[in-house]
Amino acid sequence: MADYRRKRWRGEMAVRVDVNGALDALIGPGGLQAQDLESLQPRVAQAHDRLGARRSAKELRFRDLPYEKREVQKILELARELRSEVDTLVVLGIGGSALGARALYQALCPPFHDHQPGTAERGVRLLIADTVDPSTFGALLDEVDPHRTAFNVISKSGETAETMSQFLIVRERLLRTLGAVDYSRHLVITTDADAGALRQIVNDEGLRSLAVPPGVAGRYSVLTAVALLPAAVAGIDVTELLAGAAAMDERCAAPSLFENPAYLHGAVHYLAHVARQKTVQVLMPYCDGLRGLADWFVQLWAESLGKAVDVDGQPLHGGQTPVAALGASDQHTRLQLFAEGPNDKILTFVRVDDHGARLDVPRGYGDLESVAYLGGRTLGDLLNLEQRATEASLAALGRMSTTLHVPRLNAFTLGQLFYLLEVQTVFVATLHRLDPFNQPGIEPGKRLIYGLAGRRGYEEKRAEVEAWMQKKNPRYVI
Amino acid sequence: MADYRRKRWRGEMAVRVDVNGALDALIGPGGLQAQDLESLQPRVAQAHDRLGARRSAKELRFRDLPYEKREVQKILELARELRSEVDTLVVLGIGGSALGARALYQALCPPFHDHQPGTAERGVRLLIADTVDPSTFGALLDEVDPHRTAFNVISKSGETAETMSQFLIVRERLLRTLGAVDYSRHLVITTDADAGALRQIVNDEGLRSLAVPPGVAGRYSVLTAVALLPAAVAGIDVTELLAGAAAMDERCAAPSLFENPAYLHGAVHYLAHVARQKTVQVLMPYCDGLRGLADWFVQLWAESLGKAVDVDGQPLHGGQTPVAALGASDQHTRLQLFAEGPNDKILTFVRVDDHGARLDVPRGYGDLESVAYLGGRTLGDLLNLEQRATEASLAALGRMSTTLHVPRLNAFTLGQLFYLLEVQTVFVATLHRLDPFNQPGIEPGKRLIYGLAGRRGYEEKRAEVEAWMQKKNPRYVI
Repeated sequence: MADYRRKRWRGEMAVRVDVNGALDALIGPGGLQAQDLESLQPRVAQAHDRLGARRSAKELRFRDLPYEKREVQKILELARELRSEVDTLVVLGIGGSALGARALYQALCPPFHDHQPGTAERGVRLLIADTVDPSTFGALLDEVDPHRTAFNVISKSGETAETMSQFLIVRERLLRTLGAVDYSRHLVITTDADAGALRQIVNDEGLRSLAVPPGVAGRYSVLTAVALLPAAVAGIDVTELLAGAAAMDERCAAPSLFENPAYLHGAVHYLAHVARQKTVQVLMPYCDGLRGLADWFVQLWAESLGKAVDVDGQPLHGGQTPVAALGASDQHTRLQLFAEGPNDKILTFVRVDDHGARLDVPRGYGDLESVAYLGGRTLGDLLNLEQRATEASLAALGRMSTTLHVPRLNAFTLGQLFYLLEVQTVFVATLHRLDPFNQPGIEPGKRLIYGLAGRRGYEEKRAEVEAWMQKKNPRYVI
Repeated sequence: MADYRRKRWRGEMAVRVDVNGALDALIGPGGLQAQDLESLQPRVAQAHDRLGARRSAKELRFRDLPYEKREVQKILELARELRSEVDTLVVLGIGGSALGARALYQALCPPFHDHQPGTAERGVRLLIADTVDPSTFGALLDEVDPHRTAFNVISKSGETAETMSQFLIVRERLLRTLGAVDYSRHLVITTDADAGALRQIVNDEGLRSLAVPPGVAGRYSVLTAVALLPAAVAGIDVTELLAGAAAMDERCAAPSLFENPAYLHGAVHYLAHVARQKTVQVLMPYCDGLRGLADWFVQLWAESLGKAVDVDGQPLHGGQTPVAALGASDQHTRLQLFAEGPNDKILTFVRVDDHGARLDVPRGYGDLESVAYLGGRTLGDLLNLEQRATEASLAALGRMSTTLHVPRLNAFTLGQLFYLLEVQTVFVATLHRLDPFNQPGIEPGKRLIYGLAGRRGYEEKRAEVEAWMQKKNPRYVI
């Protein structure tokens, strides 16, 4: 890393973690004590060694993603091609194949960017179709001009039912509208480098493609082609994003809890869960652009930590329930529950110091006490003081929170946030001794879907569901 | 009610509640037993009598909203005026002042409807600004043509900080762009009929306005002017919506658990919570148009049931945590947690039988086993079989669910859903013996906001927050 980056993350563009709101000094006896954190240090050191060894053994591939220069070069070249060819990029993908791109697009492109086809000046618009709802998907296809649109089909396995259904529909439309020669220029495939149906289709039909690196699960793929290609096409500076991730990686090299932001934040959430029964974590940014980050985090946390067994196969059934909220709106929807409901939640606020855009509230209605005080400040100030008030009011009730401070929302700080939350998640998984990279719990449901959809070899599964349906008692359907 | 309605709700347009997925016959010993429901009958009868008495005493105003013909007439007339004047209606409101309109707009207007100004054919577009984020709000103001835009300012109290800040900004822009004579035609105020700053402004400046009926909290206001005006302006058939609510009201008159859908569904959720420790409820529609309904429900459930004390002031700290999810996408983000994480959740699926739009998946790639099976069915079928598979796979793991069956998504069925969920919520509150209509927990935070924002009389509150901030230890900010 150049000195310039080094300086920046230590300086004004560093994302900071503030865990005071989880400690007894600020919230009273229900909070964690300094001693709780100190006592964890030996286990943190163990986890640190273990993670270091795994990284050296190339088992933590996601941690090296900020440094894959050659891959990024390929992505940037393909993005440049696409920007000269189309005004709209439609992402066909679901779950981890969609949430990273959406988080990037919402955070770093202007609001309403997707309302119109892109222009040379505004960049290409993204439409992210993580749906098989026929109303939405049909309307989306009507919304775009196929001559000026590319479709980025994203599935690591190359056989995700929703994505492949979308692909079949889109491919037929492209063939019909553009003909057998031109249609292929409107498809870009992101899938495993070697295996799966999509890779075979790429090879057979000579489609443009990128690879999902091996060993990177969907929820850890935001710094791969999965999200970087759409982001780069939309005009986002992915080099800067990766620099932010790399800067956070440097800070996450520290072995001590009190120097490593991912460890400190992770340790507080771990202890909140196991020692203070906070079974719900609410991620609540006070910034509309970070709504997508919250949704991305929900998958990361839920799918990584919600496991039935630990690495030795011992029963576990752990897993905090992550919930996305948004300040200030959700003060008016769920704060009542957070304040007075069961004390089973820890909130993670995200606070943006400088909102960039400035909007002044004009003075007016000097005679109306309940309105006049609002004049003369900016909306950004209002948003931030609401965050502060909410944090303080929950603390007064003994409710735990932490705060992520973001100096300004840009590619460099967002890169730090992604990387911080990923390292934190894997660190907490290590404390719990569970595997953060698998998702065995969704396989049985997939097999039932294959059965119901008539995939060969899954006939028994269909029978299984039908037999189960027979057990339904009409008395309980009204 | 006309016979025709009566026939419809008993017939093909009735929303149905299926609670089989919560019972031991389908999910094994962790499920509720038939006996659990039977035993609740006496308390259900009590609650029914109590609710009947409160309704007669006009204490359940929300239940009579389907029948306020004169008020609806006023709303429809104002909507007609606005439709002839503007192409965009911006809703300035937050929380309950925004979620109802958004739920209606997402469910009943076509996807992407808000991407362009309305036309005579497509109807007026809605932009719902439940935000004080300066980036979003600034971009929104740039997006609209003030000459062709009306702003509907919605705040029951008439002094909501976010909404009044928006109002001050918008009013100044309108005055500047349109002049002191014309600006007022671009403002429509929805607030208390008599009290509050906004009502005073309406009276002083002669603005067009509608009233939020007394005794209807924001989260129960979807069938008042709060959401009905924006909906009607966007071209939604609010008469049909209210007819759906009225049809559900008829069904909710039944005293028996096994005939009253709100009681049956509510009882199952109540028992799941108090007798089976399901502290989280996930509402998961398999229909993109119902995403807004899920967000609306989250407020309804959280703010109504998350209370510190019961009606006698006895400590309670109850309140399930409601979570919104969306099928099929969230099978790829959170199903792992729902399947293998702690068994502390009950899922409520919403299943739409007929998705209206039809989109066929073409056959292709006959040689690729993992793709070929998808061809020949519709996307709507795929979505519905995924719901079925998810329900069955969770049941096999002993995880509880219920299903709301919606024959087709339209104003009549959506009206049923709103009303069903509202009655269910108040019924469950009655079983818990708590007040579903207050929200005392958010008041302390509001006072801190006033303090930090410099409102006269709240100076101590500012000092309180500042003193609290001083306690933060820099060691825990990294």
